[in-house]
Amino acid sequence: MNLLLAINGWDRVIWQERFQKLLPERQVLLAGPEIDPAGIHYAACWKHTPGSLAALGQAKALFSLGAGVDHLMLDPDLPDAPIVRIVDPDLTGRMTEWVVWQCLDWLRQGPLYRRQQAARTWHDDRHQPAAQDVRVGVMGLGVLGLDAIERLRSLRFAVSGWSRSAKQIPGVRTYAGEAGLAAFLAQTDILVVLMPLTPETAGMINETLLRQLARDGRLGGPVLLNAGRGGLQVEADILAALEDGTLKGASLDVFQTEPLPSQSPLWLHPSVMVTPHNAAMSHPDAIAKAIVEQIRNLESGQSLMHVVNRSRGY
Amino acid sequence: MNLLLAINGWDRVIWQERFQKLLPERQVLLAGPEIDPAGIHYAACWKHTPGSLAALGQAKALFSLGAGVDHLMLDPDLPDAPIVRIVDPDLTGRMTEWVVWQCLDWLRQGPLYRRQQAARTWHDDRHQPAAQDVRVGVMGLGVLGLDAIERLRSLRFAVSGWSRSAKQIPGVRTYAGEAGLAAFLAQTDILVVLMPLTPETAGMINETLLRQLARDGRLGGPVLLNAGRGGLQVEADILAALEDGTLKGASLDVFQTEPLPSQSPLWLHPSVMVTPHNAAMSHPDAIAKAIVEQIRNLESGQSLMHVVNRSRGY
Repeated sequence: MNLLLAINGWDRVIWQERFQKLLPERQVLLAGPEIDPAGIHYAACWKHTPGSLAALGQAKALFSLGAGVDHLMLDPDLPDAPIVRIVDPDLTGRMTEWVVWQCLDWLRQGPLYRRQQAARTWHDDRHQPAAQDVRVGVMGLGVLGLDAIERLRSLRFAVSGWSRSAKQIPGVRTYAGEAGLAAFLAQTDILVVLMPLTPETAGMINETLLRQLARDGRLGGPVLLNAGRGGLQVEADILAALEDGTLKGASLDVFQTEPLPSQSPLWLHPSVMVTPHNAAMSHPDAIAKAIVEQIRNLESGQSLMHVVNRSRGY
Repeated sequence: MNLLLAINGWDRVIWQERFQKLLPERQVLLAGPEIDPAGIHYAACWKHTPGSLAALGQAKALFSLGAGVDHLMLDPDLPDAPIVRIVDPDLTGRMTEWVVWQCLDWLRQGPLYRRQQAARTWHDDRHQPAAQDVRVGVMGLGVLGLDAIERLRSLRFAVSGWSRSAKQIPGVRTYAGEAGLAAFLAQTDILVVLMPLTPETAGMINETLLRQLARDGRLGGPVLLNAGRGGLQVEADILAALEDGTLKGASLDVFQTEPLPSQSPLWLHPSVMVTPHNAAMSHPDAIAKAIVEQIRNLESGQSLMHVVNRSRGY
């Protein structure tokens, strides 16, 4: 009943300490070639080395340590165990903070007023729209999308949602699937991308999609926010859309290559806000606690929560 | 039953057009030396010339066109008519947008990440606090303070409030008066000032007050937000507090002198966000409609709403 930590790109020791503290009676092992798979019933993963989990024939669950499971899905050699996504109120709240922060920064013309401040210019805009005049469209209606919608509505933004399959949200207009996409985009001033990365959604934020955003909004052009996955977006298309006015601005927390290469024109583009994939950092304390709770529940006969549909990819 | 508009610093003609459209049967006059006070029963004011309303002996109400009535209270020669403050959901919502925007920008380290972006630096902060780790203290629990508190809570900030006289807000810790001020400040990481300007509150945001803010918070020092009135703050004390670390940062929409003089060190201070007194702009359409509604209600025998207590000053 031991736990394997298969982590790349993060500090593994921090995670090992957290889990060991919560599972004092078990071994919490770091993945490596010398690990004996016998007795390992669980793996907690973040960008694990593909193939490195193949020998875990006794695995009862594979847990993701961060939002999204695309890092697991990329591996064709996974053991046949349930894949469990992380749903953590702390992580959800942080993602919503980032989304609302950036929606407000575009609504209230943060880039303009910061430039004016640097020039010591006192000038206000008598045509400043209010939140209720600006339509935010959220793509992806999972736990993250729903929480962002609730808080954006509290701030009086005009919010709608789009998801692959139809979803009802009381008081919110929703659109679904290929058939609903054009109508959704045509009434969206700020597009908030919180979709999972799957073969279907990869590269979906491209020129064709951006050209369908609303042209009649109060911000002087549509704005893109992506806090989902860099693989959802085509950065060359985003840059072209910013150049020709298809987009007014973009706030990006995720990129096709991370860290964002220093030669990327996104870094110094005056209409782009770049954050270093930290919109919703996994907090080891909260995540480890949630995973250990799932392990204990499973062993006491309950079902795992938040199990991924492998064929759907999320 | 005519209406006088006594406005300085704003475009009077826009206001005259709006009111005339809503009151087609009456004269809507612009204040000036040649105006005959006979038949003028109402005045709508923004920074009127002191003394210029003295002759309005028939006045039934003096309306403020923007948030706050300190501009009226400064005039010792007002006619003896009720002073009516503006309470407008549009204006309230805009103020809350500004407050939440700036709270999130400090929470999410906007200044740091914008500097990093300008240097093409990909670096995240593993100690990023969540909203619930940060304590926002709102000074002033009128309509604006209460709305800001509700939306800040929706985003999970830890919110408390202070007002001159005791107020109960379900689920929110409140403090009152001189006796409660020190305890309120000692547990405040982000101080949001939404108080009226009165002889008692003038200059209240000074060195003595700033030194009492929490030193044990998660932001690395307390932050000041003032969207109330410039006269509430002592800018020399704010600058000194930023220099010696008493304050980590400040977002200021209002100033002792407006427009903010170009020689003010606030303009280019790296820890100060300056906006040009536009946190909550009075929108002529919404404000004129609310005032005309009050006039019609009064004339049909109802009471005026939002009448100011002259001795209290708000």
